[in-house]
Amino acid sequence: MNEITILSPATVANFVCGYDVLGFALNEPYDEMTLRLRDDSEIKIINKSDYDLPLEPEKNVASVAVMSLVERFGKKVGFDIEITKNIKPGSGIGSSSASAAGAVVAANILLGDIFDKKTLVDFAMDGENIASGSRHADNVGPCIYGGVTLVRSINPLDIVSLSSPELFVTIVHPQIEIKTSDARKILQPRVFLKDAIKQWGNVAGLVAGLLQNDYELISRSLEDFLIEPKRSILIPAFDEVKQKSIETGSLGGGISGSGPSIFMLSKDEKTARNVEKTMSEIYTRIGLDFHTYVSTINKYGIKNDE
Amino acid sequence: MNEITILSPATVANFVCGYDVLGFALNEPYDEMTLRLRDDSEIKIINKSDYDLPLEPEKNVASVAVMSLVERFGKKVGFDIEITKNIKPGSGIGSSSASAAGAVVAANILLGDIFDKKTLVDFAMDGENIASGSRHADNVGPCIYGGVTLVRSINPLDIVSLSSPELFVTIVHPQIEIKTSDARKILQPRVFLKDAIKQWGNVAGLVAGLLQNDYELISRSLEDFLIEPKRSILIPAFDEVKQKSIETGSLGGGISGSGPSIFMLSKDEKTARNVEKTMSEIYTRIGLDFHTYVSTINKYGIKNDE
Repeated sequence: MNEITILSPATVANFVCGYDVLGFALNEPYDEMTLRLRDDSEIKIINKSDYDLPLEPEKNVASVAVMSLVERFGKKVGFDIEITKNIKPGSGIGSSSASAAGAVVAANILLGDIFDKKTLVDFAMDGENIASGSRHADNVGPCIYGGVTLVRSINPLDIVSLSSPELFVTIVHPQIEIKTSDARKILQPRVFLKDAIKQWGNVAGLVAGLLQNDYELISRSLEDFLIEPKRSILIPAFDEVKQKSIETGSLGGGISGSGPSIFMLSKDEKTARNVEKTMSEIYTRIGLDFHTYVSTINKYGIKNDE
Repeated sequence: MNEITILSPATVANFVCGYDVLGFALNEPYDEMTLRLRDDSEIKIINKSDYDLPLEPEKNVASVAVMSLVERFGKKVGFDIEITKNIKPGSGIGSSSASAAGAVVAANILLGDIFDKKTLVDFAMDGENIASGSRHADNVGPCIYGGVTLVRSINPLDIVSLSSPELFVTIVHPQIEIKTSDARKILQPRVFLKDAIKQWGNVAGLVAGLLQNDYELISRSLEDFLIEPKRSILIPAFDEVKQKSIETGSLGGGISGSGPSIFMLSKDEKTARNVEKTMSEIYTRIGLDFHTYVSTINKYGIKNDE
């Protein structure tokens, strides 16, 4: 096999109380990527998207991740990386992670499936590092593993797949730009221990709710006392979107990644569609451009396009 | 029925990373309590233990908890509360909780089983308040529910039972006194967010490990970056006990409650007994009096003595 096309999904990191450790993969939207083995050892980016993407291999998350893989592979090998990006960069639903994770998963298949998932996450994190300045795994983890994943530890890397009941995700992406540096600066380095305790009580409740298929417990545990109150002020109408979505029947939700997208979970598709309508009404009224998605949780991560 | 005897177990709160939210019940040691309905509305403590216990109803955790229950019951009713205490007060394995929880569970049975477990925890917390100055549920929760319990939230009270694989618990109680006020003072009100994130990564891993019967994940998640490094300095030889217990085969462990007892978990009884030997050797060498227990996790909480 010299060529492969894969579909690399959007992901939600910072799963409410599970800031920096819990995330999940979506079935929509997703990027399409085609990788071809080359005769030389070049790595070449071919952008087939409407979005501008860096074409220098040292600056593109996909090629940087693949270069990490090639270095570990140890033999000279080159790839064309053709990217059809559907996940808008900067939307907060793992656009750069989809590129980095998709590229290493596809390259690994072309090389004969020699690296395990955890090692692929490790390579993809080098791509993430170019995009965000930190080696984080809470998007590339679920992108590669699928489903809900826990990044228990970064060093050493420890990723745990968590089962979950059927959940429908409604996402709204208000078309504003939040700089990751601003989203970071707004967080204080210290928090009150009593608030941190509430947070890990909710993390424990969320994990138990997911594993025990307990929607009520999931819903009660979807509280974030530490990050959301700070960051949500960067997202216009965040409180109203969340509040009205819950009144519409959503189990709860919060900021996707570092925003500006907001995600809300529902038990069934009908509720998720009603939540979409609620969100749309709010941003239409405000006069802010937005995009919405309704998706189930993607249990398999990156897929071959067959 | 006018009289009942129950067995109320010791409990481990502050389950390593799950500080203030996760705890579990033990099969040994346990207190024995006999409650008798009286003809008047007095509540009378009868101490059959070797330990001094407060006899004034307003000062004893058992009677204070029962008075809460009687107040909610709304009718005039009185009890003799006979306590044979085997769990040494101040040992850090839930001595006061066993009294408070045991008393309300027994009183509830004599009144015809009218309150649910959560409401009984609420009454028992009023007893705890007398003993420790705060309404906490991480000992009375597992004492009444049995097994491993999560206190997701105190207000509103939200208690979740978590299943767990078979675990053997070795406890060593070095006979020193730690004042709860000292154990509290040593904790700073603020912690680094980056450390809190590691902590809730481990909380998520511990809950997932318990529910998925994954001993390796449980073991990896038994890390506490926030509380143990501060409090363990109050317990002589803590680091050596923990380190050598792990070398002996234990999955991990930490401070029980606010100490001075240390608990270590093992997959089988043989390892738990070897851990007991390791602990005993250390405190014998140091010349500090100590007591050890080896127990499984008590899945049922307080039991009728039948």
